[in-house]
Amino acid sequence: MRLQLSTWPEVADYLSTRRGVIIPIGSTEQHGPSGLIGTDAITAEVVSWRAGEVLDTLVAPTIAVGMAHHHMAFPGSMTLRPSTLIAVIRDTILALSSHGFTRFLFVNGHGGNIPSIQSAFYEAYEEMRVHHGDGAPDIACQLCSWFSSPAVEALAAEAFGDAEGSHATPSEVSVTWHAYPDQQRTPVLDPPVAPQGRFTDSRDFRRAFPDGRIGSNPALATPELGGRFVEVAVDYIATTYGDFLKG
Amino acid sequence: MRLQLSTWPEVADYLSTRRGVIIPIGSTEQHGPSGLIGTDAITAEVVSWRAGEVLDTLVAPTIAVGMAHHHMAFPGSMTLRPSTLIAVIRDTILALSSHGFTRFLFVNGHGGNIPSIQSAFYEAYEEMRVHHGDGAPDIACQLCSWFSSPAVEALAAEAFGDAEGSHATPSEVSVTWHAYPDQQRTPVLDPPVAPQGRFTDSRDFRRAFPDGRIGSNPALATPELGGRFVEVAVDYIATTYGDFLKG
Amino acid sequence: MRLQLSTWPEVADYLSTRRGVIIPIGSTEQHGPSGLIGTDAITAEVVSWRAGEVLDTLVAPTIAVGMAHHHMAFPGSMTLRPSTLIAVIRDTILALSSHGFTRFLFVNGHGGNIPSIQSAFYEAYEEMRVHHGDGAPDIACQLCSWFSSPAVEALAAEAFGDAEGSHATPSEVSVTWHAYPDQQRTPVLDPPVAPQGRFTDSRDFRRAFPDGRIGSNPALATPELGGRFVEVAVDYIATTYGDFLKG
Amino acid sequence: MRLQLSTWPEVADYLSTRRGVIIPIGSTEQHGPSGLIGTDAITAEVVSWRAGEVLDTLVAPTIAVGMAHHHMAFPGSMTLRPSTLIAVIRDTILALSSHGFTRFLFVNGHGGNIPSIQSAFYEAYEEMRVHHGDGAPDIACQLCSWFSSPAVEALAAEAFGDAEGSHATPSEVSVTWHAYPDQQRTPVLDPPVAPQGRFTDSRDFRRAFPDGRIGSNPALATPELGGRFVEVAVDYIATTYGDFLKG
Amino acid sequence: MRLQLSTWPEVADYLSTRRGVIIPIGSTEQHGPSGLIGTDAITAEVVSWRAGEVLDTLVAPTIAVGMAHHHMAFPGSMTLRPSTLIAVIRDTILALSSHGFTRFLFVNGHGGNIPSIQSAFYEAYEEMRVHHGDGAPDIACQLCSWFSSPAVEALAAEAFGDAEGSHATPSEVSVTWHAYPDQQRTPVLDPPVAPQGRFTDSRDFRRAFPDGRIGSNPALATPELGGRFVEVAVDYIATTYGDFLKG
Amino acid sequence: MRLQLSTWPEVADYLSTRRGVIIPIGSTEQHGPSGLIGTDAITAEVVSWRAGEVLDTLVAPTIAVGMAHHHMAFPGSMTLRPSTLIAVIRDTILALSSHGFTRFLFVNGHGGNIPSIQSAFYEAYEEMRVHHGDGAPDIACQLCSWFSSPAVEALAAEAFGDAEGSHATPSEVSVTWHAYPDQQRTPVLDPPVAPQGRFTDSRDFRRAFPDGRIGSNPALATPELGGRFVEVAVDYIATTYGDFLKG
Ligand code: NI
Ligand code: NI
Ligand code: NI
Ligand code: NI
Ligand code: NI
Ligand code: NI
Repeated sequence: MRLQLSTWPEVADYLSTRRGVIIPIGSTEQHGPSGLIGTDAITAEVVSWRAGEVLDTLVAPTIAVGMAHHHMAFPGSMTLRPSTLIAVIRDTILALSSHGFTRFLFVNGHGGNIPSIQSAFYEAYEEMRVHHGDGAPDIACQLCSWFSSPAVEALAAEAFGDAEGSHATPSEVSVTWHAYPDQQRTPVLDPPVAPQGRFTDSRDFRRAFPDGRIGSNPALATPELGGRFVEVAVDYIATTYGDFLKG
Repeated sequence: MRLQLSTWPEVADYLSTRRGVIIPIGSTEQHGPSGLIGTDAITAEVVSWRAGEVLDTLVAPTIAVGMAHHHMAFPGSMTLRPSTLIAVIRDTILALSSHGFTRFLFVNGHGGNIPSIQSAFYEAYEEMRVHHGDGAPDIACQLCSWFSSPAVEALAAEAFGDAEGSHATPSEVSVTWHAYPDQQRTPVLDPPVAPQGRFTDSRDFRRAFPDGRIGSNPALATPELGGRFVEVAVDYIATTYGDFLKG
Repeated sequence: MRLQLSTWPEVADYLSTRRGVIIPIGSTEQHGPSGLIGTDAITAEVVSWRAGEVLDTLVAPTIAVGMAHHHMAFPGSMTLRPSTLIAVIRDTILALSSHGFTRFLFVNGHGGNIPSIQSAFYEAYEEMRVHHGDGAPDIACQLCSWFSSPAVEALAAEAFGDAEGSHATPSEVSVTWHAYPDQQRTPVLDPPVAPQGRFTDSRDFRRAFPDGRIGSNPALATPELGGRFVEVAVDYIATTYGDFLKG
Repeated sequence: MRLQLSTWPEVADYLSTRRGVIIPIGSTEQHGPSGLIGTDAITAEVVSWRAGEVLDTLVAPTIAVGMAHHHMAFPGSMTLRPSTLIAVIRDTILALSSHGFTRFLFVNGHGGNIPSIQSAFYEAYEEMRVHHGDGAPDIACQLCSWFSSPAVEALAAEAFGDAEGSHATPSEVSVTWHAYPDQQRTPVLDPPVAPQGRFTDSRDFRRAFPDGRIGSNPALATPELGGRFVEVAVDYIATTYGDFLKG
Repeated sequence: MRLQLSTWPEVADYLSTRRGVIIPIGSTEQHGPSGLIGTDAITAEVVSWRAGEVLDTLVAPTIAVGMAHHHMAFPGSMTLRPSTLIAVIRDTILALSSHGFTRFLFVNGHGGNIPSIQSAFYEAYEEMRVHHGDGAPDIACQLCSWFSSPAVEALAAEAFGDAEGSHATPSEVSVTWHAYPDQQRTPVLDPPVAPQGRFTDSRDFRRAFPDGRIGSNPALATPELGGRFVEVAVDYIATTYGDFLKG
Repeated sequence: MRLQLSTWPEVADYLSTRRGVIIPIGSTEQHGPSGLIGTDAITAEVVSWRAGEVLDTLVAPTIAVGMAHHHMAFPGSMTLRPSTLIAVIRDTILALSSHGFTRFLFVNGHGGNIPSIQSAFYEAYEEMRVHHGDGAPDIACQLCSWFSSPAVEALAAEAFGDAEGSHATPSEVSVTWHAYPDQQRTPVLDPPVAPQGRFTDSRDFRRAFPDGRIGSNPALATPELGGRFVEVAVDYIATTYGDFLKG
């Protein structure tokens, strides 16, 4: 059940029995020579929509642009400042909270968003605490980065071994190809497996990772594997957050 | 050409000859008993994607949640504070600007966003001016609310007369049905044409417009008309902003 | 009745029967070779003071500096960032609201302020809603840009035709000459009627409008016409907002 | 020379030889049973305008609403948050600085503004330093609270002795009566000399000072003394800041 | 009693009878060729800890970095923007207030902090007032800059005469040597007594005061005098704020 | 080498060969019935000071109050909002950066700070990128939470097994007892090992963990183990960040 494809009376019905909501959050940033710029938003969205079906839970619109400063040396990457992203998430929680939603699950597709998401949870909690003390709305926020759930990591290790890497990975590319089969690209990747390493700011990132990938060989991606990644991610979410989302 | 479905080398190619970008911006808010909560985001997105094809222009991801305080008395409506939305748009402009984009067209689906969008343009211009003076990047931002373009208003008048109204209109509902033919709903609307009027805050809105519609009869919508609305909106954008977007 | 020229017991008396307040808001920006930099603040103030007399309504001090980024390439222009102006207006509303004022009419003299004023209304409404829900103070804010009221536009069309233009107009200059008869300036204007057009940022504005005027011939101004413009603007306000201001 | 009553070419001329500007800043707050709510803005403005004439210096529009939280328990008082007032002053400095003004004298009429004004100077300096280092514009900001200049304090002591007090003082009331002779009010003040003391927040203020005055007997005010206060304040400004304002 | 060296049950006990808390606030900035960069934080902390013992009052952790823009042209100086420092103090007050602390004494070691501290008090008061009106927590905040208390100024005058100066003073250096006897430095100071004067921004400060001192001869400092300064400062605090801190 | 105990010429000398700086960051929050409220700040400080000696690296003053919303239901806990803490860290980085520091190591004692610290790094990077592009200062920021370094976790497992837990742990209590041997407290803990679990906001935390501990038995702490924890943490920092800090 997608919020965008619902009417307000339908949401009112939903809230008569349910209190949970899933919010997909991704990023709009380079994913190497072959990966889509929208990879992190697309994957979060696909996983969230399927989880919403499986769990009969409402899914809010996707936050498509995240915190991706480190990718800004590559054309097309977008970023919000952490402070802006925190404000967006804080507003999202408080807006939905006022209708009676109390259980918020952010399904995340981008590692760079994690600090902002966690900061936003506490920004919202603390604002409510300062202004309302014990009378604050009793809300609970959880973050699930689908790509680092144990089930997903196990499947990636099995399917790709060390070539999974950590950015522009074959697992996330597989999910985008599962969602958009006509968007597969297969340029020559040189080297096939990108270098590993750490980075600080956006200039340092591009120096270390000239084509944008980190440790990955996305040429190993397939749409079929993409479907399996969605499946195991949703299973993990159902097991871990199913009760939580009933509110 | 959608940014989300592009790779960074493709964006680099685009920027070797083009400087324009379209950013769809909508809202997530009640649209009466039959209209989808995502109506304003869906319509802005559909119009933008088609305009991007016609004008061979890159389209950034949709800003799906806008400023919709006045709809918050209806379940499922979401809003950003104006200050948050301004920050989001400011960050969007500055992020894309750093890659060489200089012509920004925000295609808007929601009247309530207009003050925030215009404020954000000047927030960005003024920040650049204060910090860089005459050396500031030479960017230009334009706002086009597709629903109030003359061609769209003419078609709406012809198709619906006074029953177009101003919120949960048959024109915007038609566009969503064109985009999502399986999402048509036809509850009894009582009265068929909703009351007209003004409003201040969210409580006042619900007092004045009990089912969320303003002056409209969305039962007049059809998917076919939706297709025509997209067409005339895109024609208008092509005529008005085609040269601008070449940068 | 001007707030600045009242005592607090007089305001307490006023509030025992009335709930409305008028807030003049203008700008401090170039108005061509002959127009005063304070034109927009002066005109908003003159209209507001007269409306306050006619409607027996309290008038708050004038917000004299507005959002005028686009005029900053001309010496003497001042601007607040949109975010700052929004904070000023938000604080103004909340401060007066705490005394029991519930009806706020912003009489505006500058088009560039409109997005910030409208954003501020929703910033205030939303902050109150988030923190107080249905218990939020029941306030209502309205914006009236005196220069674009129908009666004023009709008089300008009659008096000046196309030479009214849209910045440094003979109508606003007339009002300043009515208020400050000794401040009339009559330099040679070349061309007599300035060019029309659009603009983006402050550099673009000066390129398009070298002497600062847009489409106007302010040499047509007279103090007598200024008096008539005030009169018709106040009539419009009285008719449109008279009941509203009774609270 | 008032900025509001100048044209942009006149300001351009001024800047060819001068770099200084005076900015009056006051407050809009209760001043006891007889004092005007606009007292602090009126007095700052009157002193600034006269100083501008004497020193041939441009005077910007008055910042009429200041930081007056402590007066908010009295009807009609207005306040900006300190953070808002800091933003206003920061924007004021940066806007004027971009035209070439380098010497800013804030003539202040309200003690409660002092922390915000001083904070704003450093907010502006620090922002420029962080972004431009040694290339930052070489601006200098000074604060002069006219009422606490030695010459004014001496005259107040001579004229009123202990009955000067510290809020709703006969000296400031005298200046407003000098400026607005028709706005004199002479209610019975009980006690004639108000209590002295300290305060914390707005509730504490009203508990300690039930009619709003602190230690003063404003019944001693006269318009003639008001004229003398303006004179000695302007003399002090001319002596202390005359060279500074030449820039 | 130091908060950092307490447990939560001990604080709960304290709050069963007491409502006061002392918050030391200093700065991290150059103090001339011989003075420690931490001078202002160290002195505030030493005075606060001793006052806490004498008055049996809880002492919160020291705010060690303050507003020191004007010292930033000397290596090692740190500063918060005024807006950041205001936020820190506001959060400090509201956090402690939620446990039942109602009397806040900020013991300050740095003149440059004063505007930010005072602004923060009103930022907190006003935020509580806007959101809670008469139901706001009844808190009271006081600022005591130990170095400008009358008793300290008298001792400094007696001990050092004009060579006390106003930055990198022998009195504050004495206190740091009392606290850290092994941190005494005695470079040649040239001239022995530094120049007096005023300053605007950080560049202006270094031009006027090449080695960082203002009007002082810190070579006159001794650890023994440091102990006496602490003693008289604490006596002053006990006399002036002892009752206040009982809450 | 502690910044607070240095003079500016000493820092200038340091910067002639070194570019690194360590910033300790902790928290002020309940640590169960026996743990000090300052535990996280004390431990970060002790580890940082020792690392500074071993690595001949300057150590800035400790950020003593962090993000600890979740502990606010226990008396004495303090917190900054995430947005405030981000501003503090951003200002810290930019202030030190302007003197030539380029390598920033934040040694952290509190898990709740991690999202804010990481967000602040990107807030600083992104602000510099937007305003200076490739000309931005080439700084690098790293975060090291001493308590989760592999060497520390190994020692804790060896010394305490499962009774280490995750809040008010015997390892951190040991470090505070090593630093303050006279601050040992040994109340009866019931149960000896606290419950494990997750939490959302501050109310939920206290419901789940009634005495404040999570999964730990701090009665196992000893000052001697505290010394060993400092030693292994510093070894880890030296090995991992020694080269980084040379700049
Ligand atoms: Ni990704
Ligand atoms: Ni709509
Ligand atoms: Ni105008
Ligand atoms: Ni006054
Ligand atoms: Ni000092
Ligand atoms: Ni801890």
